[in-house]
Amino acid sequence: MRRGGTPAAPSTGRLRPLGLGEVTLRPGFWQRRRDVSRTASFAHIEHWLEKAGWLPNFDLPSGLRRGREFSDSEVYKFLEALAWADDPALEDRYRAIVARVAAAQQPDGYLNTNFGRPGQAARYSDLEWGHELYCHGHLIQAGVARARTHGHDDLVTVAVRAADHVCDTFGPDGIASVCGHAVIETALVELYRVTGDRRYLEQARLFIDRRGRPVLDDIEFGRAYFQDDVPIREARSLRGHAVRAVYLAAGAVDLAVETGDDGLLDAIDRQWRHAAARRTYLTGGIGSRHQDEAYGDDFVLPPDRAYQETCAGVGSIMLAWRLLLARGDARYADLIERILFNIIATSPADDGTRFFYANTLHQRVPGAEPAAGTQVPRAASSLRASWFAVSCCPTNLSRTFASLAAYVATSDDDGVQIHQYTPASITAGGVELDVDTAYPDDGRVTVRIVRTPDTPWTLALRIPGWATEATVDGIPAAPGYARITRRFVAGETIVLDLAVRPRVTVADPRIDAVRGSVAIERGPLVYCAESVDLPPGVALDTIRLEPGTDLVERDGAVIVTGRAVPVDDDAWPYAAPGVSDAGTAVEIPLYPYHRWARRGPSAMRVWIPTI
Amino acid sequence: MRRGGTPAAPSTGRLRPLGLGEVTLRPGFWQRRRDVSRTASFAHIEHWLEKAGWLPNFDLPSGLRRGREFSDSEVYKFLEALAWADDPALEDRYRAIVARVAAAQQPDGYLNTNFGRPGQAARYSDLEWGHELYCHGHLIQAGVARARTHGHDDLVTVAVRAADHVCDTFGPDGIASVCGHAVIETALVELYRVTGDRRYLEQARLFIDRRGRPVLDDIEFGRAYFQDDVPIREARSLRGHAVRAVYLAAGAVDLAVETGDDGLLDAIDRQWRHAAARRTYLTGGIGSRHQDEAYGDDFVLPPDRAYQETCAGVGSIMLAWRLLLARGDARYADLIERILFNIIATSPADDGTRFFYANTLHQRVPGAEPAAGTQVPRAASSLRASWFAVSCCPTNLSRTFASLAAYVATSDDDGVQIHQYTPASITAGGVELDVDTAYPDDGRVTVRIVRTPDTPWTLALRIPGWATEATVDGIPAAPGYARITRRFVAGETIVLDLAVRPRVTVADPRIDAVRGSVAIERGPLVYCAESVDLPPGVALDTIRLEPGTDLVERDGAVIVTGRAVPVDDDAWPYAAPGVSDAGTAVEIPLYPYHRWARRGPSAMRVWIPTI
Repeated sequence: MRRGGTPAAPSTGRLRPLGLGEVTLRPGFWQRRRDVSRTASFAHIEHWLEKAGWLPNFDLPSGLRRGREFSDSEVYKFLEALAWADDPALEDRYRAIVARVAAAQQPDGYLNTNFGRPGQAARYSDLEWGHELYCHGHLIQAGVARARTHGHDDLVTVAVRAADHVCDTFGPDGIASVCGHAVIETALVELYRVTGDRRYLEQARLFIDRRGRPVLDDIEFGRAYFQDDVPIREARSLRGHAVRAVYLAAGAVDLAVETGDDGLLDAIDRQWRHAAARRTYLTGGIGSRHQDEAYGDDFVLPPDRAYQETCAGVGSIMLAWRLLLARGDARYADLIERILFNIIATSPADDGTRFFYANTLHQRVPGAEPAAGTQVPRAASSLRASWFAVSCCPTNLSRTFASLAAYVATSDDDGVQIHQYTPASITAGGVELDVDTAYPDDGRVTVRIVRTPDTPWTLALRIPGWATEATVDGIPAAPGYARITRRFVAGETIVLDLAVRPRVTVADPRIDAVRGSVAIERGPLVYCAESVDLPPGVALDTIRLEPGTDLVERDGAVIVTGRAVPVDDDAWPYAAPGVSDAGTAVEIPLYPYHRWARRGPSAMRVWIPTI
Repeated sequence: MRRGGTPAAPSTGRLRPLGLGEVTLRPGFWQRRRDVSRTASFAHIEHWLEKAGWLPNFDLPSGLRRGREFSDSEVYKFLEALAWADDPALEDRYRAIVARVAAAQQPDGYLNTNFGRPGQAARYSDLEWGHELYCHGHLIQAGVARARTHGHDDLVTVAVRAADHVCDTFGPDGIASVCGHAVIETALVELYRVTGDRRYLEQARLFIDRRGRPVLDDIEFGRAYFQDDVPIREARSLRGHAVRAVYLAAGAVDLAVETGDDGLLDAIDRQWRHAAARRTYLTGGIGSRHQDEAYGDDFVLPPDRAYQETCAGVGSIMLAWRLLLARGDARYADLIERILFNIIATSPADDGTRFFYANTLHQRVPGAEPAAGTQVPRAASSLRASWFAVSCCPTNLSRTFASLAAYVATSDDDGVQIHQYTPASITAGGVELDVDTAYPDDGRVTVRIVRTPDTPWTLALRIPGWATEATVDGIPAAPGYARITRRFVAGETIVLDLAVRPRVTVADPRIDAVRGSVAIERGPLVYCAESVDLPPGVALDTIRLEPGTDLVERDGAVIVTGRAVPVDDDAWPYAAPGVSDAGTAVEIPLYPYHRWARRGPSAMRVWIPTI
């Protein structure tokens, strides 16, 4: 019997997570993707970890090492995915990998194939870029996943030894520094939550307090890149490298919750709100700079240079989830939904063997399909690629899909809260629910009471911020949580209708990059136009939507009306305003953004000009 | 008596450059800036070259070397500036620096303080990033400048020895590679032009032909960064790192002109036109990506992420000038004018001791003034800084101001062509002209014939592309060149009136980033709004211009009318379209962009929304 487990298990908070033993996905949008990940992506990832040499690194002498300095962490993210999957059919492969990892661990607990051996740089000689604590952090997260789903085993032993080594080396009397890439912080707090050993909590606190004094050397990207510009409590926003930022913030929430540090929790919440209001794409994705994979400045959100690293989406979910558990506000779950449906669902190919690393919102020129079996440079491909020189996105997706059921629902002393809508069984104490829905295609969600106590309790259903016409059993329900408090009867159903239909969206006028454009959304899904769907001779970048266009649903598309305007290939692109040619009327079918680039190379845009 | 000299001296072409001995700046816009450069910037640069250790590197053992791997080149750019300036008062300082440089040259002609000595990496062990040929190239350019202004001396000797070393090492039987940063190509062709030694021309050809096969190792930025993605004749656009791109293209034009290779010249021209139509900012600046300082994709020209490296402006002038000499078309001189008035004039502070490296077109948040005497990271400052860890911009400006007179006029068999308007004396054969003007404040340019042959000749005056109402002696003249072919009389004047007045400019609709915005220009100048000029309580990013606003000239400003609209700091910045609040009427004074950031920290924007 599966124990279950959950990625975040705070000791206290507004809501308690329900884990993989309490929420079971049923056939539908997410179960399908989780199963593809398990049956196809897992094998694909393992194949590439061998082929690229990143797993053999654990077996081989240092002179034969291959891959970037952080490649060990991809093995650990994959082990974490295997742990969450907790599938007997995968047990032998899991144990075989763990054995190879364990064999590479040093006697003092240090584990990293890139440093410290003959011919290699010394341990911790490059804290800015070496990623050693980052790798240890992912190892610890894998150990936590295994401990929670299965119990203590060899991987947990390796992870604990590594954590002890980290505390020995970076403790109050040790190296008074931090890792250039955060994640060790959240990992250590979860290990504390699993073991009860406060030493891990104290070490997380040390890392978080040291950062921003500043403590690391300057780098060309600037200190905000790795959040060592100001102490964490003083920052006004999530900033810098997006994945680093959200991993660090997640660890800070974990620390704040375990230590009762409301000031720190408030600070992270403030930063989160600032970034949600000013630095986040419509898709929920983050990162608008390519070369440093970083948040942009406030309101700098160009669709074409949208970086939206898939891993940053994963980390953003981790952070928002922890804030949701701590504070209970629907806004956090709203963002998780956006990211799930518009980044997590976008990145993988339908067959689970290709992925987007960066997720653009405006592809001007159709890309070139990389050959199957080709490893591409980081983020270089405008089509999904099999593998990358930096392949954190495929492995991050694998652990996310494997643990996705743990983000669906929570409980508290009053009852059960459902945050994400997907077919599922949910068990919490004396309550058992079945959720049935065709969401996001359809806005109806039917919650059937399978088992219930005799006493009243509260069923809370999240009403997304976009759902302005939602009803529960026919009664209007405003965005936030609709709470039904009464006695329930086994067999009865509660019907939520989110009234999913297409809508026009505009951006805050301070987001200059999308001025004069609109996006079409439908429920949680962002839609887009692709060149493959346009009439012959109509170029995507010449489309102008009719103001007040109808939004017609037909054959899975949302059809809008616009014009294709002529363009002038003049020598100099700046001139006096002229009379714009009305152009040719055209119908443009829009499809969900997560479906883009699945029919070969194409141009694509989410934000479509109206002028 | 000054010999003069000119940065480019092609053996053939449509136009022949008039050099520093033939064009003398008179008091006015450019002379003032050239003199500040000579009297203040030169001393500032020399001070920093000593203080940062980049000049002492030539004296010191390798273990004490300071600065980035290319810092030698800043000494060479400065020597080039000293050479063009050809000022007896600077002669001793010039000779002293040359002596230190010469003392560091190896017996075989190699000269670089960062490689090849004990404890340093071996020569040419990192062609992708080592910048060794780049440094040799700037050294050679300095030698060329000296040879042309003064004649052979020790610097010329050093430069020739270095060039011989380059040919020995990278010749047909040598290292079959190129430098990651182009400039050696144009330098070698100019040295061929000075010396007549074809070996230098052949070496330039080798470098240009090898590039793009590909020949260098892959780098994370991608091969287009250093133009090693495709052979130069096959490229469709200027692309990649902007400075590298334009230096390389300049060298290719030089090679094509000297070898009669019209196919190569056509290819560069084609790439130039593509970049001018799709990858260039309104200011003439280039580079819309920060981390790789590169051209963006077609039509990706965000004002806020405008990089517009000052050095790229310098290189763009060099390239456009060479195309102008080869082909004679006004479009090249139009671009030079734009860059001069909107990048070259913008970068330096009025006192010549601070500089912009990157030149944004949208500063949302006022920056912080770096402390005087502080070296800042590359491009980090939103205010002009004294020096940078990468300080190519101040030295590039110094050599540009010192040689600026050489970009004013040319001659051909028919007569004299004036391309840039500034008070000056121009001599070409039997012709002597005085140009008097208050341009760009005023559009009147008076050309007085001081001396003339008896026979007819053609005076050609460039009519900029924006000057749609220009007249010559009262007769309308269309953009291009107004050609006056007749006998002239000493003492007579020809009056060009470019009818400079403010105008509204919009961008090609494919430049998404400035949709729904306009810019105001006046003559060659781009204008901008700065927060320091707004009424109290009016935030720059809330301004919307009235469609059809008047453009009123008052006190050196162009006053436009607009509204300050309220903004809503909501949690999520995407929503249904709403009714926009009319806001408060406001007058906004606009000033030339080159005057921005001279009154302390401010927000600024060039492209101002109308919606």
